[in-house]
Amino acid sequence: MNYRMIISTISQLLRVEAALMLLPVFVSLYYHENIEYVFIMVIVALFLVSLISGLIKPRNKKIFAKDGFVIVALSWILMSFFGCLPFFISGAIPNIIDAFFETVSGFTTTGATILVDIESLPKSILFWRSFTHWLGGMGVIVFVLAILPHKDMQSMHVLRAEVPGPSVGKIVSKTMVTARILYMLYFLLTFMEALLLCIGKVPLFDSVNIALSTAGTGGFAIKNASIAAYDNLYMEIIITIFMILFGINFNLFYLLLIKQFKRAFKSEELCTYLTIVVACTLVIAFNIYTTVDNITTFGSALRQSSFTVAAIISTTGFVTADFDLWPSLSKTIIVILMFIGGMAGSTGGGLKVARVMILLKSAYNEVKKTLNPRVVRTIKIDGAIIDAETVKAANSYFIIYFLILLISTLLVSLNGLDFATTLTSVITCLNNVGPGLSKVGPVCNYSGLSYLTKLVLIFDMLAGRLEIFPIIILLSPSSWKKNR
Amino acid sequence: MNYRMIISTISQLLRVEAALMLLPVFVSLYYHENIEYVFIMVIVALFLVSLISGLIKPRNKKIFAKDGFVIVALSWILMSFFGCLPFFISGAIPNIIDAFFETVSGFTTTGATILVDIESLPKSILFWRSFTHWLGGMGVIVFVLAILPHKDMQSMHVLRAEVPGPSVGKIVSKTMVTARILYMLYFLLTFMEALLLCIGKVPLFDSVNIALSTAGTGGFAIKNASIAAYDNLYMEIIITIFMILFGINFNLFYLLLIKQFKRAFKSEELCTYLTIVVACTLVIAFNIYTTVDNITTFGSALRQSSFTVAAIISTTGFVTADFDLWPSLSKTIIVILMFIGGMAGSTGGGLKVARVMILLKSAYNEVKKTLNPRVVRTIKIDGAIIDAETVKAANSYFIIYFLILLISTLLVSLNGLDFATTLTSVITCLNNVGPGLSKVGPVCNYSGLSYLTKLVLIFDMLAGRLEIFPIIILLSPSSWKKNR
Repeated sequence: MNYRMIISTISQLLRVEAALMLLPVFVSLYYHENIEYVFIMVIVALFLVSLISGLIKPRNKKIFAKDGFVIVALSWILMSFFGCLPFFISGAIPNIIDAFFETVSGFTTTGATILVDIESLPKSILFWRSFTHWLGGMGVIVFVLAILPHKDMQSMHVLRAEVPGPSVGKIVSKTMVTARILYMLYFLLTFMEALLLCIGKVPLFDSVNIALSTAGTGGFAIKNASIAAYDNLYMEIIITIFMILFGINFNLFYLLLIKQFKRAFKSEELCTYLTIVVACTLVIAFNIYTTVDNITTFGSALRQSSFTVAAIISTTGFVTADFDLWPSLSKTIIVILMFIGGMAGSTGGGLKVARVMILLKSAYNEVKKTLNPRVVRTIKIDGAIIDAETVKAANSYFIIYFLILLISTLLVSLNGLDFATTLTSVITCLNNVGPGLSKVGPVCNYSGLSYLTKLVLIFDMLAGRLEIFPIIILLSPSSWKKNR
Repeated sequence: MNYRMIISTISQLLRVEAALMLLPVFVSLYYHENIEYVFIMVIVALFLVSLISGLIKPRNKKIFAKDGFVIVALSWILMSFFGCLPFFISGAIPNIIDAFFETVSGFTTTGATILVDIESLPKSILFWRSFTHWLGGMGVIVFVLAILPHKDMQSMHVLRAEVPGPSVGKIVSKTMVTARILYMLYFLLTFMEALLLCIGKVPLFDSVNIALSTAGTGGFAIKNASIAAYDNLYMEIIITIFMILFGINFNLFYLLLIKQFKRAFKSEELCTYLTIVVACTLVIAFNIYTTVDNITTFGSALRQSSFTVAAIISTTGFVTADFDLWPSLSKTIIVILMFIGGMAGSTGGGLKVARVMILLKSAYNEVKKTLNPRVVRTIKIDGAIIDAETVKAANSYFIIYFLILLISTLLVSLNGLDFATTLTSVITCLNNVGPGLSKVGPVCNYSGLSYLTKLVLIFDMLAGRLEIFPIIILLSPSSWKKNR
């Protein structure tokens, strides 16, 4: 492994994190909160660490796939560690494991919180919390690629490890250009959401925080009751629309930008994604309208179900209704939506719609093959054949994913909680959603879990966001052998 | 499709079922139960249907894979239908869907029962109920192949569709010889278990029924409290040993028979299977010893855990302890064991140990490949390379299996039951285990579920036992098109 190159890259990343932490400093100054010193301390620490590690100059800039994975995994862990220090030092989260959990949940855009009273926290702390979602959504490394003058294309290895979903068709090929366009679009959409919320008379600070959180499909809110606290229909509609938008592949927005409307709207993955959203919204609306007592009109059923479906499939995890009280059918649909997640190349988590499509199509082909073994069948998405390697990768991904789910559930079950809590806490964290069922339901939080459970869920959140391989490779002893 | 050949084959099968139903007639006569007429009515019905359908003579005996699958699926459904008539006509199970559920549960060796008071039933009915397990365990069609003079090797297509597990290495190649050897071993082991139980002073009728039920890894007991009713340590030890034995690939017994001891004991699948049994037994024993109040000695913890682990991994589903009251860790392990199931080529259900091994090894290879993309890696079991097609088939099987699990859970959730009941009822039926958690837990039964749920679970039991493809192919419209 090219240790020097790994250290040097991470050193640059930490410097970027230091710079980004200036934003909450401004927030603290603006609101006269007098906790600038917390962020400044961490900025200094980050700068020093970065400076010292920056002294190690890489002898050659060549990095292999393995180095790329290790860079991604290590930098996410280190950025989360330094990112959690403001919470810890300011006393907002007095326990370091809790603070780390909250920050990993932020960067991985999960939105699972250990905070019991969110509203009591200083605004600068809340802003940093929401901002981790925004940074984690598009990827911290993508951000660095977008702003730093990287001339070598080796960075592709790193980028590939961070951007979610199986790559189905490439649109913009040059890494740096891609990263810049993506971030421009990302910034634009976030800005639009904040603006629209402000127009709807949502306070500026709330609007910005919600927009940052939605953009990253995170789910941290600045109210204890999440979005339910506002009870504002206009706001819910705006957020629902943007949650759905941020679950869409950013390549499609790029296609709209270059006026290839037809190609964008003919995307099979987009059709599948929107069909799932509409179908599940209707089924859940009907289901809760007919069974839940305090839902009296179909309109209010539709309001709750559309928001919840958008919040879950995009893996944002904002809450306007306690779906843990809904009937089994709705709850089962919600758990299945957690698995599906957003589209590939979006900021959403989960298995990704494209991957689910590949899995289903390959399973369908296998059934067909049993009938006619001699016919060679291929899998097509948007008319293009998906090569056998991609299909195999999707299959293996699913199995490893399922395995992590099992082992995590086993470890979490040591906590002695009920079956629904045990299983859905792992499902929701591995898919970067946030709320689960039962004791980790929409109106609950993760504060009551044991440290072991929190550590397992931290692993799951990172594994889910980075699509497993970087984290496994980081932890596998064979990666660290002298001679590979 | 070769309809004539399909009808003719099924016609033969029904005649065999008629003959087998003579056994409960003798039981009824022996115990003076005066319900022989029930079985005789069904025998006559079976014989007439068989006679009429037997008039259709196949024009050619050539059958394709598709025909084989359709024969297997249809004959299991028809045999279950006729097999349920004695329960229905005798009034033991007054509802036809319940009776069908019970019989499918019998033939598929699931052991999920809708009966509330088992002990009140006539002995001949109980015997037929246990006997369906024995027949379903090794496969009804295998049985026919074993006793009927089929000279054409086309029957391989049929056999392949019924015998569980991915084929890892062939030992006996000729179909008929295989079937006979298998049934001989099967009969021998069943006889031995019944004998050992009798020696332990278990009543003859109970011994025979338990042995039939164990052999098929079914789980129907003739007491309401299952094996717990006897509270007999000797009996539990014998049953535990035989449950483990019937979860073993029958090819290995054949190897012992021909004195290839080394080859039998070096089986990687056997080692994995036994390691899982021992490890899970110890973990659960320790877990329940330290947390469950009424377990006071490690010995009694070990007694309960070893029996339960053997009952679950072999997918028998006999019960000596209400594991629904055990701590989460033990329950999670039990649910995972349901997924694993017995060895390939055993009478056990589940994914099968061999398939799980292939899945894990291929997932491991995929991780390795991410590090060194150019190294070609193969999967070996018992030193032999598993070809890419088998690996792909195992992958696809798992995805289709998971899909069925999801859709079934969705349908069962319409029942409005709690999350654990909804999910584990599907898991336990799809894996042919029997007991689940919560409302379908070890001391509960399936009588309270809705008809829709029962029909879904009937589908799952059949899909699980026949390893999905026959049932899907039977139900797929494209199988029934005139020109394929």
